[in-house]
Amino acid sequence: MSFTTQEEIKSFGGKIVKLQHDSKETKTKMDVNLYLPKQYYEKPDTKLPVLVFLSGLSCTPNNCSEKGFWQPYCNEYGFAMVFPDTSPRGAGVEGEDETYKFGTGAGFYVDATEEKWSKNYRMYSYISKELLPGLASAYSQLDFDNISITGHSMGGYGALMFYFRHPGRFKSVSAFAPISNPSNGEWGRTGFSVYLGNDKSKWAEYDPTELIKKYDGPTTPILIHTGKADPHYYEEHQLLPENLLKASEESKLKGKIISHMEDGYNHSFYFVSSFTKDHAAHHAKYLGLTSKL
Amino acid sequence: MSFTTQEEIKSFGGKIVKLQHDSKETKTKMDVNLYLPKQYYEKPDTKLPVLVFLSGLSCTPNNCSEKGFWQPYCNEYGFAMVFPDTSPRGAGVEGEDETYKFGTGAGFYVDATEEKWSKNYRMYSYISKELLPGLASAYSQLDFDNISITGHSMGGYGALMFYFRHPGRFKSVSAFAPISNPSNGEWGRTGFSVYLGNDKSKWAEYDPTELIKKYDGPTTPILIHTGKADPHYYEEHQLLPENLLKASEESKLKGKIISHMEDGYNHSFYFVSSFTKDHAAHHAKYLGLTSKL
Repeated sequence: MSFTTQEEIKSFGGKIVKLQHDSKETKTKMDVNLYLPKQYYEKPDTKLPVLVFLSGLSCTPNNCSEKGFWQPYCNEYGFAMVFPDTSPRGAGVEGEDETYKFGTGAGFYVDATEEKWSKNYRMYSYISKELLPGLASAYSQLDFDNISITGHSMGGYGALMFYFRHPGRFKSVSAFAPISNPSNGEWGRTGFSVYLGNDKSKWAEYDPTELIKKYDGPTTPILIHTGKADPHYYEEHQLLPENLLKASEESKLKGKIISHMEDGYNHSFYFVSSFTKDHAAHHAKYLGLTSKL
Repeated sequence: MSFTTQEEIKSFGGKIVKLQHDSKETKTKMDVNLYLPKQYYEKPDTKLPVLVFLSGLSCTPNNCSEKGFWQPYCNEYGFAMVFPDTSPRGAGVEGEDETYKFGTGAGFYVDATEEKWSKNYRMYSYISKELLPGLASAYSQLDFDNISITGHSMGGYGALMFYFRHPGRFKSVSAFAPISNPSNGEWGRTGFSVYLGNDKSKWAEYDPTELIKKYDGPTTPILIHTGKADPHYYEEHQLLPENLLKASEESKLKGKIISHMEDGYNHSFYFVSSFTKDHAAHHAKYLGLTSKL
């Protein structure tokens, strides 16, 4: 797979690199941002660990690159980041731009099985089988065998889902306001039924609250922050972190979910960025990194 | 003046407060964001210094609130911030939405004298005589007698301009990629001629490179960062920090401008946020604050 560099933007001594490539999975061009910390340029012989950040509904790779404020912590610990897009764009599927809840900006990190969507909306295979291996080939200085994953909202769900489905592939996982039990919230039910139809056994293959019950990998602690003033949490019950926690109690990860319910915080990047530092420290620990400050 | 609170968003333990008010100067509703750091809530008996951030062309109060990454430093030192808007909005002046270079989002912090604009485009009086005194009355816990000013691009020009025109009112000034000599760059010439006409003596009343020659206030050092890979700097010559520096050599501020020309950085908030920490430390020093970390 070959990437074309659209833009390189210096940031905190490193660079935000905006890439584009043709995807075999989505049959579209796909955008992805990297952040290469200053160590990438200063120490070309040192391999750098990688943290993947999966974004939420309606986001592009730019939202978290601009508002997540990861860059100083990438430099503090010495890890790169990958900010994938949230769906194919311009696939031409009828209805894909109708709502923020499915289609463009809302791929839900699944491989669609419903015929209409199944040709392009393959974000599960795209991320895990195409994008990450492709980046590993193109950026030999990045160590994709020493990789962790995090995300926000739909991307928090995605991070947990990939982590539980690939035991041991990621050194650690964390999430900001994740859709923790998508089969039981309106966003998740909408997305899953659009892409997967109404067979709930297919939904279970992607639902973190179902996946954790069968999880048999490493028992690294999992860090989750959720804002108690987030209407998607307290009013719409989209997030349901309590369901994931409850399921974890009967699982190999019993006691391993560190769930912080934070007073007063909403669902925005004002919330995410407030806890970026904590999540960076969490992943750094399991990526074998220490603060250089 | 009375403010209505549109939204309060928790961020890094403090709050972004989105305010709206009727302005006598612009004859429109105006938006402004505050950041109240955690000390505002934890220590209600302590008055907090204030830093004003003036934004650049096309920005609203939200751009820097989301992407500037000031909040952790507000908390580190204990100062509040004010993020004003960059123009009236919806004033109804013919042509105000025609280009990003004047009109909506591009008030240039002047009081327009050209008749068409003069009723509403009064950002100089709005900021200095209405907004800051109004906030001082409404927020008695903020110390508007201990205030500094900074800004980006058009807002960097604005910060320098207000500082030079009001010797001693602001404890310190800094700027990110300021339009340092607007009379001699295309953005500045366009804005000034639209609002002030073609009498260049009127332009000189707002041009930092002219104002510094007559400046007779405190000799506090002034911190400026400019990206050398910013096309508005190296290609379009909109910024002209070298002209301000040269003028300073014949002024009371000789040797007092600390101008950092930074390799590789562009004009975006990726550049601004990379140096926010340095500017926060600069202002904290002159606001009498020390790091609480």
